[in-house]
Amino acid sequence: MKKELVFSVEEYQQRVANTKVSMQKKGIDVLIVTDPANMNYLTGFDGWSFYVHQGVIVALDEDEPIWFGRGQDGNAARLTTSLEERDIYAYTDDYVNNPVKHPYEYVAAILQERGLDKKVIATETDAYYFSAKCQQTIERCLPNATFVDGYNIVNWVKIIKSAKEIEFIKKASVIVQNAMNVAYDEIDIGVRQCDVAADVFHAQISGTKEYGGEYSAIAPLMPAGVRTSTPHLSWSDKNYEDGDTVILELSGNYRHYHCPLARTMILGNAPQKVKDLGATVSEGLTAALEGIRPGMLCEDVEMIWRKTIAKSGFVKDSRIGYSMGLNFPPDWGEHTASLRPGDKTVLRPGMTFHMIPGIWLDDCGVDTSEPFVVTETGAEPFCHFRRELLVK
Amino acid sequence: MKKELVFSVEEYQQRVANTKVSMQKKGIDVLIVTDPANMNYLTGFDGWSFYVHQGVIVALDEDEPIWFGRGQDGNAARLTTSLEERDIYAYTDDYVNNPVKHPYEYVAAILQERGLDKKVIATETDAYYFSAKCQQTIERCLPNATFVDGYNIVNWVKIIKSAKEIEFIKKASVIVQNAMNVAYDEIDIGVRQCDVAADVFHAQISGTKEYGGEYSAIAPLMPAGVRTSTPHLSWSDKNYEDGDTVILELSGNYRHYHCPLARTMILGNAPQKVKDLGATVSEGLTAALEGIRPGMLCEDVEMIWRKTIAKSGFVKDSRIGYSMGLNFPPDWGEHTASLRPGDKTVLRPGMTFHMIPGIWLDDCGVDTSEPFVVTETGAEPFCHFRRELLVK
Repeated sequence: MKKELVFSVEEYQQRVANTKVSMQKKGIDVLIVTDPANMNYLTGFDGWSFYVHQGVIVALDEDEPIWFGRGQDGNAARLTTSLEERDIYAYTDDYVNNPVKHPYEYVAAILQERGLDKKVIATETDAYYFSAKCQQTIERCLPNATFVDGYNIVNWVKIIKSAKEIEFIKKASVIVQNAMNVAYDEIDIGVRQCDVAADVFHAQISGTKEYGGEYSAIAPLMPAGVRTSTPHLSWSDKNYEDGDTVILELSGNYRHYHCPLARTMILGNAPQKVKDLGATVSEGLTAALEGIRPGMLCEDVEMIWRKTIAKSGFVKDSRIGYSMGLNFPPDWGEHTASLRPGDKTVLRPGMTFHMIPGIWLDDCGVDTSEPFVVTETGAEPFCHFRRELLVK
Repeated sequence: MKKELVFSVEEYQQRVANTKVSMQKKGIDVLIVTDPANMNYLTGFDGWSFYVHQGVIVALDEDEPIWFGRGQDGNAARLTTSLEERDIYAYTDDYVNNPVKHPYEYVAAILQERGLDKKVIATETDAYYFSAKCQQTIERCLPNATFVDGYNIVNWVKIIKSAKEIEFIKKASVIVQNAMNVAYDEIDIGVRQCDVAADVFHAQISGTKEYGGEYSAIAPLMPAGVRTSTPHLSWSDKNYEDGDTVILELSGNYRHYHCPLARTMILGNAPQKVKDLGATVSEGLTAALEGIRPGMLCEDVEMIWRKTIAKSGFVKDSRIGYSMGLNFPPDWGEHTASLRPGDKTVLRPGMTFHMIPGIWLDDCGVDTSEPFVVTETGAEPFCHFRRELLVK
């Protein structure tokens, strides 16, 4: 079967090697990786199959990761990874949604077969799709193993992006700016919200003439009116109305690498409060972005924002950004560094963040964001889209 | 804040009452519900916020469910549910992606405050987004509670749909058939795959003139060529080629109620094997669908399929269908009844299934499906789309 590798075999091998170094430092022999983004990062494995239990096992004693998943997804592993046939384990379909059989019984059997059942085994305890039952099952099946927490090990390995990864996010940035323009052009009083959302999706997936887009880890977030008082509601099938605030948090996606971008529109007779809030957010965002230097801590960036907006009277009680990049639903965040008080992560060149200091009040809100990469001298925004409220 | 309830308060109350009956039968005092579809089913709660920890707590001693989630999502609970303010608990943002603080410490504190910390507490152990860490944390924080498995309790309550739920799936069925027509019309040799995918998304979200569509729990699955040897890869930015098989597994979605539908296209000079496989799948699907009667077991339906295709020489080693309906990413299946050997679930009127007896070979595959509702006399398909291979 002809392989469809996105990165070179060497780049995947380097990622696995880096993961093993991190495992060794923590005294971990075996790491079970279930986060679909981490599976993809280490092996290239692709597909919307994360709704059933699957993963890759990284063991210090094994040359390459071991993939496990559902029978019918085995060919996806054969197509999208360079793993050898002996390292692809596809379970029978009666493990799926079956109260008397669990896929982690199968995983335990793999570890026994490979002689890894008495080792120090780490799991991604707080990762998507690694359920309580997975942990309970593998602990029950491998009584001689020692279980430790391996959450975020791969996430921290992937926080510094390679040149090719940055290039992918730049490709995604072209897509998201197209999508934002589509939204701005089409949103207007009397237009049906779902029709605009449909065109935004179209722009995300069709991509550019040179390359196409992927499904995003988060659907376009496009709340209007009172729904902008909270960030995660989206479009409805009602029409936009005079005075509506419309938040647009969209993403471009190239080969599962995201470039998210948020802007806020105001239609017609919008309240002064929203305009003031919009100006404050843009000012704080710009100051924080321009103040970034490699070597600073994540919390230093938040402090610039905080000091800048202090005079406005508005208060932001949540983080203003997070590491982002390669991901699958339901999130494009990487769950490692956050731009907030107490986060001592040192900013290093190649780290990519989404700075999104949204503020939500009782009946409205404003989201304005910039995705950026830390460079040798500062922060380079991925997008160049006017940073003020979009007025119509 | 004006409420945006999708169902009547009485319908939500009935669903909670049914859940409590099931809890009582199992000796459960408190059920922590984290599956976003189950949260929505019991309270109406909506939003793409399931990427952080959130849930609703159903307690026999409490009149209505208690919602917990991230601070900024509190207004989504206020907008989309009828819960009283005293039952909405929004945690501070420093619980998000923070290695030294976990949202289930907050959940434990809620249970203590309500005097529920010594009760029999059930969690949805194998549900999406209920991680191993959630279970570990709540067990650590509530040493006097008794923990039991509450997986799928709500899923089984919701397996019989109300008249209004059926109506929603019928609305979704109009959308998916539109989307399938778009795909059929546009897919052709030399057309770029991502451009067709973009138009499919557009049809899904724009919906009809009367109502709009929602984001689907699974992105359009549209593998072509050798990628059809596995079901969960999707479009690329390559062009369709002469001889390609194209699998289309799409969904319509109205207010998070799904109507999925799969068809397979063949372009130009397709191999005879695919044509034979397509005819076999259609014949077996039709026989199984027409053979359904309420009172039969799920495994009986599979047996009809199995006997029908036996003469073809093709073998299907996975389930041929599953209960479906209300859902959020990453799956539109309900994880309860499956149409497969050993499943003794009795078919009852109001149950809704996606019968999808796909067969994947080494280098190609065929998916043809029918979503249906069990009626008083048989099975009523939601769609009326020609059931053979789509040839072009």
